[in-house]
Amino acid sequence: MLTNDILSQWDRENFFHPSTHLGQFARGEGAQRIVTGGEGCHITDRDGNRLLDAFAGLYCVNVGYGRTEISEAIAKQARELAYYHAYAGHGSEASITLAKMVMDRAPDHMARVYFGLGGSDANETNVKLIWYYNNILGRPAKKKIISRWRGYHGSGLMTGSLTGLELFHKKFDLPLTQVIHTEAPYYFRRPDLAMTEADFVAHCVDELEKLIAAEGADTIAAFIGEPVLGTGGIVPPPAGYWEAIQKVLARHDILLVADEVVTGFGRLGSMFGSDHYGMKPDLITIAKGLTSAYAPLSGSIVSSAMWEVLARGTDENGVLGHGWTYSAHPIGAAAGIANLDLIDRLGLVENAGKTGAYLNRAMAVALGDHAHVGDIRGEGMLCAVELVADRETRTFFDASATTGAKVVGAMLKRGVIARAMPQGDILGFAPPLCLTEAEADHIAGVTAEALREVLG
Amino acid sequence: MLTNDILSQWDRENFFHPSTHLGQFARGEGAQRIVTGGEGCHITDRDGNRLLDAFAGLYCVNVGYGRTEISEAIAKQARELAYYHAYAGHGSEASITLAKMVMDRAPDHMARVYFGLGGSDANETNVKLIWYYNNILGRPAKKKIISRWRGYHGSGLMTGSLTGLELFHKKFDLPLTQVIHTEAPYYFRRPDLAMTEADFVAHCVDELEKLIAAEGADTIAAFIGEPVLGTGGIVPPPAGYWEAIQKVLARHDILLVADEVVTGFGRLGSMFGSDHYGMKPDLITIAKGLTSAYAPLSGSIVSSAMWEVLARGTDENGVLGHGWTYSAHPIGAAAGIANLDLIDRLGLVENAGKTGAYLNRAMAVALGDHAHVGDIRGEGMLCAVELVADRETRTFFDASATTGAKVVGAMLKRGVIARAMPQGDILGFAPPLCLTEAEADHIAGVTAEALREVLG
Repeated sequence: MLTNDILSQWDRENFFHPSTHLGQFARGEGAQRIVTGGEGCHITDRDGNRLLDAFAGLYCVNVGYGRTEISEAIAKQARELAYYHAYAGHGSEASITLAKMVMDRAPDHMARVYFGLGGSDANETNVKLIWYYNNILGRPAKKKIISRWRGYHGSGLMTGSLTGLELFHKKFDLPLTQVIHTEAPYYFRRPDLAMTEADFVAHCVDELEKLIAAEGADTIAAFIGEPVLGTGGIVPPPAGYWEAIQKVLARHDILLVADEVVTGFGRLGSMFGSDHYGMKPDLITIAKGLTSAYAPLSGSIVSSAMWEVLARGTDENGVLGHGWTYSAHPIGAAAGIANLDLIDRLGLVENAGKTGAYLNRAMAVALGDHAHVGDIRGEGMLCAVELVADRETRTFFDASATTGAKVVGAMLKRGVIARAMPQGDILGFAPPLCLTEAEADHIAGVTAEALREVLG
Repeated sequence: MLTNDILSQWDRENFFHPSTHLGQFARGEGAQRIVTGGEGCHITDRDGNRLLDAFAGLYCVNVGYGRTEISEAIAKQARELAYYHAYAGHGSEASITLAKMVMDRAPDHMARVYFGLGGSDANETNVKLIWYYNNILGRPAKKKIISRWRGYHGSGLMTGSLTGLELFHKKFDLPLTQVIHTEAPYYFRRPDLAMTEADFVAHCVDELEKLIAAEGADTIAAFIGEPVLGTGGIVPPPAGYWEAIQKVLARHDILLVADEVVTGFGRLGSMFGSDHYGMKPDLITIAKGLTSAYAPLSGSIVSSAMWEVLARGTDENGVLGHGWTYSAHPIGAAAGIANLDLIDRLGLVENAGKTGAYLNRAMAVALGDHAHVGDIRGEGMLCAVELVADRETRTFFDASATTGAKVVGAMLKRGVIARAMPQGDILGFAPPLCLTEAEADHIAGVTAEALREVLG
């Protein structure tokens, strides 16, 4: 094994890390952590730390770390056939089997799954399919995509445009013109504190209707949303939101894309967020939970109605000109099969619902009375604690104080990884779905301690 | 193991294959092949076929199939740490080591490597970095990207726009407006048969100058090109092309992106195509050869000059809002390390040059006199045979006759996989870099037989 010093230097001198402060990191100022292993909800690093990962990587290691069932499946696949492409009707036993397993779990009205690599490229595929679909239907002007402020759908050019967060737009000339944004279903940040949840849903519907009227429904192809807002703040929708939104979309013949990169395969305590909230999407984006991140794999699940049009498109135009060299990579497919099997065998969808609810209650008990806790919210194995300068007036801290990041830093010193969400002082929790009640109690306790350290 | 029949049915009913005729495949008409394993330059399928893969998957399995050095590295990494993210300065021994290995091999003026998943997303990263770079430099209008007709740079919305092939634009509303195309450096298809190579280079330069003048240099950020055109027809540049083009770019302060997804790590008989042709790019795209496709991994190598601006950008604006959950995935990194080691140990860069030249000569001997062979060209372990209706007048076949696809089909019956390139009747060859002379002879012989079967 290399010494820490050499590795650290190589890292600073060669490695362009994602979502990092490049200047600080290169100068040796920014945080550096070299991760060496993990088991269950814990990771270990080269400095000898053992940390409880209450964010499951980037809410993706759903089955937890160190699952030999998946690593052995990867090893076996690597030995048999590490790679062959999936173009022009090629496949492997692993990719075909996983396609079948995904479709067995997907809502009944879905027809096929296209496999990509990560959530961003899956949403890229979705936009391509949506445009193609409307071209085949002879509606060349119906192309804009509505997303929500605070939605997260990737960090490419189009997918970062779908994302409704400043960090992903600023200095990148985004969003692109084909994307327009509407109100986030974020009740805690409702524009008028007097609004009830029902009022706020009516307001979201009204905003959407106004946007559609202003742009013209014949220019709008699709609406994309996460069942529960993720990186935008971990925000479950207000009651009745999806039902009301879907009525508007149906009236204007606008497709619905459910971005289930975070929620797919159990995180909400249901197999899909679409099941959980009665959504009937035309496309479902999947990634993280599909393989629990043991290997890169994502997917676009296409409805029967949409599939028929796409198939007709190829009858009229020949081969669909879309594909990644690594679409349906056998290593990812093998990891996916083992992962979905494990989720079933360990009852992790059920545990996400049960222990997730326990975590949310524990957090409410530990922090609910704190003067700077404005909101504690969650669904399944997702939880967020939103900090405020003043509870009564719902006044937020100045962003420059980086209050959320400071609390997360204080938690890290105590051995627990949470995430300071990028917009607002919001502590995010998305542990592996195998979390135990004892671990949930520990997370809540450490959060309370850290909060007291930073905010008294 | 599942019976072929069930797997075949699952495949037809659930799996949305990339670059496939969806209607035919679903109806059971299109080709279906379930690949089970491989060794060296051969793959095997469930129907008992053993095929010589003269396209190395999608020119990516550079070290050949069944390399236990890589599969064991993947297995070891999967057991130790299948995943942790690389955001905010996190890494693993594998990802850091690979970053160092890539930079040791990259041209001297390059500074850092960002890791993605596939070539498309790496070019997506490049465009984001280019736009960010010019925003930091206070040149908000300098944003357009010049690509070449017949370039291949991916199949996303932006990357499919960079691609200059009809299949990837038609019915997808591409290219996006930020991308403009210039003449392909495709001497065989020069507009005037009387042109010498030098004339044709002057013509390409002239076309580029005219495009820059028409658009305004202050609106153009970058020029992207593959050192050797790949999917557009496997076309080495005419002599002096890159030197002449780079002079134009330097004069107008336009960045150069070398898309080395196909050429990186040895395919031309040099470590990079940039070395091979004296290119001095600001960004280098890498993917296929980085892991020989054993696991998905790509990269954007950034020059020192560009890195300084990006780092300054984060000093001024904070964290760079760009990242994929699976950036620098440990499984991909482990595969990359083992793959680059193997390329060195087996001398595959040298063999690509030597046996690649042998393959090109063998092809010229076997096919050079055929009345319907208009051009045989190649560089390193790349070779293309372009078919024509008439040699003297350089008249092409009607595309609807699918002549190239028919020859490739006749080769497949004889156990050799070549690729019918998507635009023109062009037989493409890009075997693993470990090809032997005997295998090269076999490929040339089968190509000649197939050609005679289809065209007499």
